[in-house]
Amino acid sequence: MNDFSLKRLNDTIRDVPDFPKPGILFKDITPVLADPEVFSIALDAMEEKVTGQRIDKIIGIDARGFIFGAALADRMKAGFIPLRKKGKLPYKSHEVSYSLEYGEATIEIHEDAVSPGERVYLVDDLLATGGTAAAAIDLIGRLKGDLVAVTFLVELAFLNGREKMKTPAPVHSILTY
Amino acid sequence: MNDFSLKRLNDTIRDVPDFPKPGILFKDITPVLADPEVFSIALDAMEEKVTGQRIDKIIGIDARGFIFGAALADRMKAGFIPLRKKGKLPYKSHEVSYSLEYGEATIEIHEDAVSPGERVYLVDDLLATGGTAAAAIDLIGRLKGDLVAVTFLVELAFLNGREKMKTPAPVHSILTY
Repeated sequence: MNDFSLKRLNDTIRDVPDFPKPGILFKDITPVLADPEVFSIALDAMEEKVTGQRIDKIIGIDARGFIFGAALADRMKAGFIPLRKKGKLPYKSHEVSYSLEYGEATIEIHEDAVSPGERVYLVDDLLATGGTAAAAIDLIGRLKGDLVAVTFLVELAFLNGREKMKTPAPVHSILTY
Repeated sequence: MNDFSLKRLNDTIRDVPDFPKPGILFKDITPVLADPEVFSIALDAMEEKVTGQRIDKIIGIDARGFIFGAALADRMKAGFIPLRKKGKLPYKSHEVSYSLEYGEATIEIHEDAVSPGERVYLVDDLLATGGTAAAAIDLIGRLKGDLVAVTFLVELAFLNGREKMKTPAPVHSILTY
């Protein structure tokens, strides 16, 4: 991934002030998705983080993580596993709850989504406070998946979400703010 | 798409009884996603429906539609547009509300997601009662997008959702129950 491509990716992300609430500057990735060349840069960068490593399953987090995870799974000939908000998965599932700023949230994974020892790659669009990603890593551990790496398109480093990631696997981000 | 591949796709979908409520037999597509060969069959079939036609944007509906739409957009070098449940899109949006069995739902699209005359392909995993897809078609019309086709992986024909689709564009499904 060269600097020119990364700059183009960075320049395509749109800052939206006061979303989802006053005082928050939201990093809107939809212009990245809408431009096939820039979407491809983002996917190339996420694929590059595990170059040469066997990946059995790619796990994407509900809902924007599905966008990157599914496209990467198709590219890399891996299975795609959706990790979902509570109540959305129809089959037997494991769940983990975690704290939000106000209240808590729960995410689930199907019990048969990952077999013990399968090599999995976890991707999401955004690392903010890290609660969701930490819960995802917990769920992968319950299924005895072998977590190869975690990659976020955007990391908001000032929120220190990286400190919540309890995994020996490398944690990458393509763009850091 | 040959009959052998379609049979394999069909055989991989899992029936889950009584989800999301008693009496409903849910068509669980997660085993399709988890198997790279079968996921590829599903994507091939959805891509085949618009073979030879220029597609500028692929629109996927929150949340499972993102899985197919994003992978197809990457394959077909088109932009990907997420159509989202209310309150999730950060930028200026159009919205349409529609009736559910109990209550109503609202979906949104960014105002700049599709330019007038752009050729768009709408995809989703499931055509049930058709309310969401009809709302999606309405939103595409508001942006003056040129809807080339609509494709669902699974159509529950006994729910007559197809009758709600008010569009001259062809409406396809890969598997029909």
